[in-house]
Amino acid sequence: MPDELVTLEELGRRAVLASRLLAIAGSAQKDEALGQAADLLGGRAGEILSANEVDVDSARAAGASETTVDRLRLSESRLDAMASGLRNVARLPDPVGEVVEGYVRPNGLRVERVRVPLGVVGIIYENRPNVTSDAAALCLKAGNAVLLRGSGSALQSNKAVAAALRDAAVKAGLPADAVALVTDTSHETAEQFVQLRGVIDCLIPRGGPALIAMILDKATVPYVLDGDGNCHVYVDAAADLDMAERIVVNAKTHRPSVCNAAESLVIHRAIAGDFVPRIAVRLEREGVTLVGDDRARLLAPTIGRATEEDFGKEYLDLKVSVAMVDDLDAAIAHITRYGSGHSEAIVTADLGAAQRFVREVDAAAVVVNASTRFVDGAELGLGAEVGISTQKLHARGPMGLRALTSVKYVVYGEGQVRT
Amino acid sequence: MPDELVTLEELGRRAVLASRLLAIAGSAQKDEALGQAADLLGGRAGEILSANEVDVDSARAAGASETTVDRLRLSESRLDAMASGLRNVARLPDPVGEVVEGYVRPNGLRVERVRVPLGVVGIIYENRPNVTSDAAALCLKAGNAVLLRGSGSALQSNKAVAAALRDAAVKAGLPADAVALVTDTSHETAEQFVQLRGVIDCLIPRGGPALIAMILDKATVPYVLDGDGNCHVYVDAAADLDMAERIVVNAKTHRPSVCNAAESLVIHRAIAGDFVPRIAVRLEREGVTLVGDDRARLLAPTIGRATEEDFGKEYLDLKVSVAMVDDLDAAIAHITRYGSGHSEAIVTADLGAAQRFVREVDAAAVVVNASTRFVDGAELGLGAEVGISTQKLHARGPMGLRALTSVKYVVYGEGQVRT
Repeated sequence: MPDELVTLEELGRRAVLASRLLAIAGSAQKDEALGQAADLLGGRAGEILSANEVDVDSARAAGASETTVDRLRLSESRLDAMASGLRNVARLPDPVGEVVEGYVRPNGLRVERVRVPLGVVGIIYENRPNVTSDAAALCLKAGNAVLLRGSGSALQSNKAVAAALRDAAVKAGLPADAVALVTDTSHETAEQFVQLRGVIDCLIPRGGPALIAMILDKATVPYVLDGDGNCHVYVDAAADLDMAERIVVNAKTHRPSVCNAAESLVIHRAIAGDFVPRIAVRLEREGVTLVGDDRARLLAPTIGRATEEDFGKEYLDLKVSVAMVDDLDAAIAHITRYGSGHSEAIVTADLGAAQRFVREVDAAAVVVNASTRFVDGAELGLGAEVGISTQKLHARGPMGLRALTSVKYVVYGEGQVRT
Repeated sequence: MPDELVTLEELGRRAVLASRLLAIAGSAQKDEALGQAADLLGGRAGEILSANEVDVDSARAAGASETTVDRLRLSESRLDAMASGLRNVARLPDPVGEVVEGYVRPNGLRVERVRVPLGVVGIIYENRPNVTSDAAALCLKAGNAVLLRGSGSALQSNKAVAAALRDAAVKAGLPADAVALVTDTSHETAEQFVQLRGVIDCLIPRGGPALIAMILDKATVPYVLDGDGNCHVYVDAAADLDMAERIVVNAKTHRPSVCNAAESLVIHRAIAGDFVPRIAVRLEREGVTLVGDDRARLLAPTIGRATEEDFGKEYLDLKVSVAMVDDLDAAIAHITRYGSGHSEAIVTADLGAAQRFVREVDAAAVVVNASTRFVDGAELGLGAEVGISTQKLHARGPMGLRALTSVKYVVYGEGQVRT
């Protein structure tokens, strides 16, 4: 039966069966599958790029923007990057079987909490076909089967990449259904997908606000949301202004389109007279547009007027908002009000200020005297990431292999009963 | 303004503000609040019991069963138990601030993952007014504000208990809104409650299938489900049959109405000839009704016929199903098919069988040579529990204080930027 005719229920059933085999597969076998997949992406570059060309042509014909087309496009070098991503994941330590804690109860029961796979992970994503291999690799390494539901715009590319991953699994003696792609890309199927309760143990969406809204409305499976990053850099009264300048420029301009880029500066009034004009000139030289509150604008007239909306906005672009504050309390209050709980940085030499900021700012990551750009799975040592969670349950911040696992209690007795 | 006139939105807003103060409150202050609450439950026993009497009378007048009335009823001794529960939670170690892991990156960044409160925890629950103090105590100790939405049948009791908790918070210098009770117990408000996105960071339901169905359908806030327990005891070929008998009797009869009680026995055929007649006689003597498959019934004719439905059922009563299997594979397959992923036990002296069972059975807890009744927060050393999660995200198995926390990345640099 051609894959297209397999129902979603049947795909789910197969994924569950595959997940049971993956859960007990050893690291060597999973790593072998990842290595085979990397080889196949190289070996099949021609057919994968042809499939991708079909998607790119369709997108162009449908009038997609050049940004969208660029995200969709694969190339030899992007395929190489995907392959080395697979090999990189193979080299990471296997999280499965890790004993998270263990102890003996007074009655002699030995209790362990052991890391185990989640089961079936669902990924629903848009456009970029590299997610197909990146996400599947992490799921597989953590012992999960993965159900992928990509967008219609990337269907041919996703099919070619998923076929390579499935063949690689089989070469390593694992079930092909370790990786399965939902090829029906209708909106109805997306809604059914997020309701595969009893099949999907964890749903991870990679997409925009419309996708998130659909999941909040329709999903009955457990999910982890990868939220926006309206990230602040707070330059404290006790900041080293050279350091502050380096950090602000890096956080804003190193890669403005990503979620850990800074979107807003909060400046203590004690150093604002020096710092605001200086950072305005420097950022403008980097092509950044600044908007700010009235007090900041008095210090640097090139700064435009910020609306209330500006302070809450994730620009993802060469634009930044600037707010002046009277003290640390006001800085924390500003971040609490406008932040999205992603990554928040303070630049200060004052230990007390750093400690309060770390404790009181409620975000997935708080950063002292470094760029927000470090809040990333690779930079924080997770090896790779499947997203950055801004929710507080299960996983918070960059999600690596451990975020794709659960924990099981294992209790060893010698005949104990409760009295 | 009387509490009844405060809107749900306003209650939510106050809870968020309270949660910020609780998040930075020290252990001593939180413990003081719990101790004050315990004292107030004692000091106000008269008025709490009078309020409870109103609920009990209304329930009786509405024709509630004696079981329902019993669950609803408070007494001096139940109030004492609630007070000692509060003192017990005060003595537990504070989970907030625990450094879960910490390391230094090659570029000198120091990374820590630090345990922090969730923020606002929502508890939606039925009938039993002791949940009001038990759940609130755990939430508060973990630095969270708690929004309680109990049932209309327990409203007067819940109001009296919640008032004591709020007054105790204030006595300890914490905001009264650390604990808030939603007094509008309409179904519409319950639906609004589970949609307080941006207010409730974690929703924990304590109730039956209708409540769970409503949450799956309506909730937009993150939640952790406390699922059914169709728990098995598998008696292996290599079991010590005296031990197996002790464990089966304990798991089935020690407290049949709870989720970690055994509901089904799976018996290896090699010892079935000895064990099935023996356990049938013994369980029947304890008042247990047995139903089984044909092979089990041939060995003990008092066993009734089990339907397919019986094997999937959580009786919560003195009844048990019995299945005979040919080997460990069949035992694991049976548990995989019918289990609910709560607690599964094996009785065996065979190390290989124990290892396979532990690895291959997918449940919140797997137990070797001990009663399933140990799968409980207190028995496993968590001090107290807010429920037993059968889902795989965030918390699995008994949920103690740590399940009521999240983790924050804290990154310390000396001016590092990304290149």
